[in-house]
Amino acid sequence: MAVVSIPDPRWVDALSDVPGVELVEWDMKSPPPRPDIEVVVPPYMSSPTRLEHLAALPELQAVQLVTAGYDHALPYLPDGVRLANGAGIHDTSTAELALALVLAAQRGIPDFVRAQERGEWLRAAGRPSLADRRVLVVGYGSVGRAIVRRLLAFETDVTVVASRAREGDDLVERVHGIDELSTLAPRAEILVLIVPLTDDTRGLVDAELLARLPEQALVVNVARGPVVDTDALVEACRDGRVRAALDVTDPEPLPEDHPLWSTPGVLISPHVGGASTAFEPRALDFLREQLGAHARGEGLTHVVHPR
Amino acid sequence: MAVVSIPDPRWVDALSDVPGVELVEWDMKSPPPRPDIEVVVPPYMSSPTRLEHLAALPELQAVQLVTAGYDHALPYLPDGVRLANGAGIHDTSTAELALALVLAAQRGIPDFVRAQERGEWLRAAGRPSLADRRVLVVGYGSVGRAIVRRLLAFETDVTVVASRAREGDDLVERVHGIDELSTLAPRAEILVLIVPLTDDTRGLVDAELLARLPEQALVVNVARGPVVDTDALVEACRDGRVRAALDVTDPEPLPEDHPLWSTPGVLISPHVGGASTAFEPRALDFLREQLGAHARGEGLTHVVHPR
Repeated sequence: MAVVSIPDPRWVDALSDVPGVELVEWDMKSPPPRPDIEVVVPPYMSSPTRLEHLAALPELQAVQLVTAGYDHALPYLPDGVRLANGAGIHDTSTAELALALVLAAQRGIPDFVRAQERGEWLRAAGRPSLADRRVLVVGYGSVGRAIVRRLLAFETDVTVVASRAREGDDLVERVHGIDELSTLAPRAEILVLIVPLTDDTRGLVDAELLARLPEQALVVNVARGPVVDTDALVEACRDGRVRAALDVTDPEPLPEDHPLWSTPGVLISPHVGGASTAFEPRALDFLREQLGAHARGEGLTHVVHPR
Repeated sequence: MAVVSIPDPRWVDALSDVPGVELVEWDMKSPPPRPDIEVVVPPYMSSPTRLEHLAALPELQAVQLVTAGYDHALPYLPDGVRLANGAGIHDTSTAELALALVLAAQRGIPDFVRAQERGEWLRAAGRPSLADRRVLVVGYGSVGRAIVRRLLAFETDVTVVASRAREGDDLVERVHGIDELSTLAPRAEILVLIVPLTDDTRGLVDAELLARLPEQALVVNVARGPVVDTDALVEACRDGRVRAALDVTDPEPLPEDHPLWSTPGVLISPHVGGASTAFEPRALDFLREQLGAHARGEGLTHVVHPR
C-alpha cells in the first residue's frame, strides 16, 4: 500500500475508494503524522512555508499539487522528489468566470447593479451583445480551450493565439503564434488573456497593444495581473478608448486607493476564477486518477519537475 | 413589384437587395406615403396607436412585426389582413442576457461591483458555480432552446418543461409537461422562466412553488413579470431561502420605492433581454426571408392571425 497524505478529512473520505493507497490526513501545519508517506498532497491555499516539512519524509517520492501554478513549491522540493501540478482542475471554474465577466461587461450588468442601488429603472440604448463579436483569446492551454468552447455557444467569431502557431483542433481552424498578436489586435473587439506569467508575457498588453485594439474593445484578464501594464490600461480606459473586466490585477490585492477601482469602464472581481464549487469535485476526480496511477506503479502524469 | 413599407432608412438600404419588392420608408408617425402598400413593417418599439394608419391602405395584405409579442397589434388589424410576428429574432439576445444574469448571480458579480465602489478587494469563500447545477428551464420555444444550448456548454444538468410533455430533441432527452413543474421544483437549483404570459402562466411562480425549490435556489425571469408573484418572491428572498435575477418585473418599470430593489439576493436588469446589437442583423435576415417569400407569392410564415 502506498501511503499518501491528504490535507482535508472530507477528501480522505471521498478518496477512500482508490485501490492500493493508504490515506493519511495531514494539513502540513505540524510535522508529518508518520514517516513512510510516499506522496504528499499539500493544502489548496496555504503558506508555501508549510512545505518545509517535506524534508522530514525519507520515503517521499512525489508531491501532487491541486493548483496549476507550482513555482512556490520548487524551493522546498527535496532532491529526487517529483512535483506534479493540478492541470485542468480549474478549467471549468475559471472559464466560467471569464464568461461571467465578458457577459456582464457587454450587457451592462455593473450599470444595472449601481442603478438598482438608487432604485432606478435604467432606460438605455441597445448594448453590444457578445454574439457577433470578434474575440481574440490569448493563451490556448486547457483553460483557454474551456473558454473557447463556451464562447462558441454564443455565436462569436473566435481567434486564438498561443506561444507557437500550430494546426487547429475541433474548436478552431488554426492556432496563431504570439508573434501575430499585434497584427490580430485591430480586429479584436474582445481580448481574453489566459497565458501563464513568464518573462515573455509580462507586460504583454502595453500602451502600444492597447492602442491597436478597436474603439470600445473589452480587455478581459483571467491570467495574471502583470500580463497587463496597469498604468497603460487605466489611461486607455479613462480616455474611453477601451473597457476592461479583470479577475487579476497588478498589484494584487488592489489597494483601496488604487485608481483602477474608479476608472470608468472597468469591472473588477477579486481573483475568484478558481474559487467556486466547481473546484472540489474536479480536484477529487483528478486526485483519484493520479493516486490510482501511482498505486499501480504507472507514476504520476502532469509532472512539472524534473522535466 | 410588391410595395413594402419599412420603418427605418438604414433598413431600407439593407433590404434593397430583396428581389421583387419595392421598399418605401414609413415610420407610421404620419399617414402612409402612398396608398398601394401591400406589406407594412411597423417600427420596433413604438406606440401601438400608430397602427391606426393601417386602415388607410386599401391594398394591404399583411403586417410583419419584428417583435415576438403581437397582442398589441390585433385591435388595429383591418379585416382580411394577416399578421406575422418576429419569431426567433430575439432568441440570441435574450438567451445571452439570461446567461449573463445566471452567471453574474452565481459568481457574485453584483457583490464585486458594490465592493468596487468602496475600493474593497472582497475576500470570499467559493461561490456556487453554474457548472454541476441542476437547471430547470420553464418554456421551450425558440428562446428556451437558445438558453438550453448555452447552458449545456457550462457542464450543467438541464431539464425542460413546456406546455405539453413530448419527445426530446438534439439538446434534451425529453420535454416535461407543465403539470410536472411542482414535482420537478425540489431538484431545481436554478429555475429559468421563458414562457409566454397567458392565463395559465400568470402567477405560475407563487409562494407554494417557491417553497418547493431547494434552499438558495436562483429564480431567473426573462419571460414576463407577472409569471412570478412579486410579493411572494420578495418574501422568499428576504428570508434568504431563494435568490432572484430578473429582467422583467411586475409592475414594470419598477417604481423607485418598490421593495424589490433592495431585497437581498435580487439582481434586476431593466427589461433589456432583446435590447442589444444582436437584434438588428437578425431582424434584417428575418425580414429578407419573409419579404422574399411574399414577393415570390409563397406568403409569409409565422402568421399569428388569422390562425
